[in-house]
Amino acid sequence: MSDTTIDLGVIPGDGIGPEVVEQGLRVLARVAGDAGLAITTTEYDLGARRYERTGEVLSDETMAELRRHDALLLGAVGDPRRVPAGVLERGLLLRLRFAFDHYVNLRPVELFPGVASPLADPGPIDFVVVREGTEGLYTGNGGALRVGTPHEVATEVSVNTAFGARRLIEHAFALAERRPRRHVTLVHKKNVLVNAGGMWQRLVDEVAAAHPDVTHDYLHVDAATIFIVTDPGRFDVIVTDNLFGDILTDLAAAITGGIGLAASGNINPDGTAPSMFEPIHGSAPDIAGQGVADPTAAILSVALMLDTLGHPGPAERIRQAVRADTAARGDAARGTAEIGDAILARLG
Amino acid sequence: MSDTTIDLGVIPGDGIGPEVVEQGLRVLARVAGDAGLAITTTEYDLGARRYERTGEVLSDETMAELRRHDALLLGAVGDPRRVPAGVLERGLLLRLRFAFDHYVNLRPVELFPGVASPLADPGPIDFVVVREGTEGLYTGNGGALRVGTPHEVATEVSVNTAFGARRLIEHAFALAERRPRRHVTLVHKKNVLVNAGGMWQRLVDEVAAAHPDVTHDYLHVDAATIFIVTDPGRFDVIVTDNLFGDILTDLAAAITGGIGLAASGNINPDGTAPSMFEPIHGSAPDIAGQGVADPTAAILSVALMLDTLGHPGPAERIRQAVRADTAARGDAARGTAEIGDAILARLG
Ligand SMILES: CC(C)[C@H](C(=O)O)[C@@H](O)C(=O)O
Ligand SMILES: CC(C)[C@H](C(=O)O)[C@@H](O)C(=O)O
Repeated sequence: MSDTTIDLGVIPGDGIGPEVVEQGLRVLARVAGDAGLAITTTEYDLGARRYERTGEVLSDETMAELRRHDALLLGAVGDPRRVPAGVLERGLLLRLRFAFDHYVNLRPVELFPGVASPLADPGPIDFVVVREGTEGLYTGNGGALRVGTPHEVATEVSVNTAFGARRLIEHAFALAERRPRRHVTLVHKKNVLVNAGGMWQRLVDEVAAAHPDVTHDYLHVDAATIFIVTDPGRFDVIVTDNLFGDILTDLAAAITGGIGLAASGNINPDGTAPSMFEPIHGSAPDIAGQGVADPTAAILSVALMLDTLGHPGPAERIRQAVRADTAARGDAARGTAEIGDAILARLG
Repeated sequence: MSDTTIDLGVIPGDGIGPEVVEQGLRVLARVAGDAGLAITTTEYDLGARRYERTGEVLSDETMAELRRHDALLLGAVGDPRRVPAGVLERGLLLRLRFAFDHYVNLRPVELFPGVASPLADPGPIDFVVVREGTEGLYTGNGGALRVGTPHEVATEVSVNTAFGARRLIEHAFALAERRPRRHVTLVHKKNVLVNAGGMWQRLVDEVAAAHPDVTHDYLHVDAATIFIVTDPGRFDVIVTDNLFGDILTDLAAAITGGIGLAASGNINPDGTAPSMFEPIHGSAPDIAGQGVADPTAAILSVALMLDTLGHPGPAERIRQAVRADTAARGDAARGTAEIGDAILARLG
């Protein structure tokens, strides 16, 4: 990666993935061109159709190729008609997150102007969830005994390291320092998960001591879901583990207009492997190919990518265009390309 | 227990616990009297003040005494000024749930008439969460290594057995059979937690085969939180594990007017030990002693107890009185005793 080129690996994936990625790339081409950034893209045919054809999810060769890019853009993977549930999620999505050490799973939560929230009185919502991406219950630790018998025992092990939690928490505090409200909320369940929760709390206290300008508090995950629907404006930066982050970010997306608008970054802040950006929505096979999927989440994921790669100007331009578009959105249904066109037009 | 007496153990506990339990007992006395049920109560001084005085959370002797009752009613425990967070939750609440095999943690979710929901368009909400109470991440399995060092590793183990999940799932399907919509939704995260999630799904499929009149579906926990705020009317009976149930029921309480209205039963359906009923709210030390806590959740917990002990008539009488009360509630703030009075008055 140089300051003026981005070598992007693109995984359009399944269902609505290719449709929304197409719009994301159109918007990227425009803002990059205007900013004097050269973009090269390489497409990777990964996902359900590839699996159906070849039985292969992700080869080591492809992994090596993906690794050479500056960043990755993913649409969505999964198609229950072609591949058993979980195979692509674990074999592709989670494999990339773990192999490329995407320890910061970054999910901004913003209620854009004009967007209807299911909440009666949402107020302004503008927070960010800093979700751990490489530990916890996602490590694939655990197993099963006497499967299929009345004596089956199935375990899932949440593995948490001080190394893993601390680097994430440091990222969260550094991020909070750059935001106006400078507040971090740790979400865990430390009254029950005493080992992991105790460690997270100790590390937050330690890191907080080095950031006297950032305030912090703690919420149990169950209480956090209450506040997300009763007082979402109280949150600034939430730092939490892999599973709690998964749950809270879908809920947070729901109160800000739905997963059609929610972007995410799987970030390796150390630059030892490319970060990967994706809408948090899935492949939605039921509406695939109809040109009706909302590409906004994919477009906002492109903005997150530009931010992460050190191009905050074009990133903010995209977000402003999206805000202008949502503000003008009526109730009229618009297609995927139509929304892409509208956002491009707002770029001026 | 006979058909005409209930020998009740009462744990008022801390904070607002004693205040709300008092109103619950008033309502119980009235409906029981009218139904020819004799109630005897024994109070147990357990909780933060006891802990502060004696250093004791729950002795084996007290456990043995509690075990002799027909049922237990608990207000709330915990007081951060007197006892470290988690000590009473684990040493008292969870200890009772595990020792008395409260494997059905039952949490009805109903939007009562006149109650304001934070949702703009909640529609009718009437479902019940059947949460597992004796397994999963609540077993206290796990540990920590090199605590307090940069090399700390902390684990939490979710332990799930076919025995434990199946009996809960059977309870959920039997319950669904008695409800008009007869629908069960399994909530898990089987695309990631393949061992536990795979087992839960297999057991749901097996139990469902024996209940052809009950329909069922599956949702990932993250998607379930979305539907709870966008389409809560779709749920009838949710069956889920201990931690997911904890999270979903706080969220469900939030959309139906808050934890001040949410009852729960820790039920041992086999009758090998007393079931325990409690509001899902905590001890709220900040408002304790002011007579402002809403006792409705405690009163509804009494109704759930009567249901469970085989007295659906008086139970439904309480719920009708609560519905009449909430329907007439204006915005005026009312105190704890005032709400108790009002509900008693509605009993006629
Ligand atoms: C698809 C699934 C494995 C994934 C997760 O649980 O992380 C998704 O829900 C997400 O949030 O990106
Ligand atoms: C206090 C805590 C241990 C408890 C739980 O997590 O089960 C509470 O949140 C609940 O839902 O009853």
